[in-house]
Amino acid sequence: MTATQLFLSLGALILGTALGSALPDPEAPEAQEANVRALLQRQQEAWNGHDLEGFMAGYWKSDDLTFFSGANVTRGWQATLDRYRQHYQSPGTEMGKLEFRDLRIEMLGTDATFARGEYHLAMASGQTQHGIFTLILRRMPEGWRIVHDHTSPAE
Amino acid sequence: MTATQLFLSLGALILGTALGSALPDPEAPEAQEANVRALLQRQQEAWNGHDLEGFMAGYWKSDDLTFFSGANVTRGWQATLDRYRQHYQSPGTEMGKLEFRDLRIEMLGTDATFARGEYHLAMASGQTQHGIFTLILRRMPEGWRIVHDHTSPAE
Repeated sequence: MTATQLFLSLGALILGTALGSALPDPEAPEAQEANVRALLQRQQEAWNGHDLEGFMAGYWKSDDLTFFSGANVTRGWQATLDRYRQHYQSPGTEMGKLEFRDLRIEMLGTDATFARGEYHLAMASGQTQHGIFTLILRRMPEGWRIVHDHTSPAE
Repeated sequence: MTATQLFLSLGALILGTALGSALPDPEAPEAQEANVRALLQRQQEAWNGHDLEGFMAGYWKSDDLTFFSGANVTRGWQATLDRYRQHYQSPGTEMGKLEFRDLRIEMLGTDATFARGEYHLAMASGQTQHGIFTLILRRMPEGWRIVHDHTSPAE
């Protein structure tokens, strides 16, 4: 360990003390993955209960949330909710039954992860919509939240 | 600071010592962002010099690299290079002039970042291809590398 590394590690220790009141205790990596997986599981259940606000509870409630769907950019939690309402709860649309598949969660430090996977939406008509997604999640005082969602529907 | 946090911070300090030989000294956040931005700048320059291998130097040289283009998944550095060759260096294709725009780089701890932005490819025909991307980058012993790329071309 160099002097710089020692200095930075000590700095992180002091900073950790200062931030101690903002974030709950650090989570072990297995707990991180389990907590992120549980969040996505709750989202799936909320969606399948047609509870769009419950589904949106998985997202960071901030104007800085970003949602990329194909090449379209939506900014902010409220705009993202409005977009979901328009696509899945307006006349002529339906929410369908959501399933996440091939979910891979990878830690990026103690307070950030990214998740990759597929979504499948089984519609009442018998058709299925599907695609792939990349999620960035951060650990907030209120728990893990998606801060960026990039979703690509299959054509 | 709770006893658990103190214990984990001390654990991180000891772990930092153990890993000290694997990664270079931690970077200050401004250096992290500058280094990631420089990597993407080098990629842009390599592309515009029609140096696809130079462009690919920005990606993690691993079978675990993932590349999502629209709803298509490519796994591994070699397969990603092959895909680029097929799309931009095979008969009837061209590389065009690449420009990244609206690049936002956000730190996710000391050794991970994610980047969001737009790409624009000006073709000899006068047409422009464009789209948006999400990149996950990790700091490796050899420097910052893209470990996951999710790109969505505009239709």
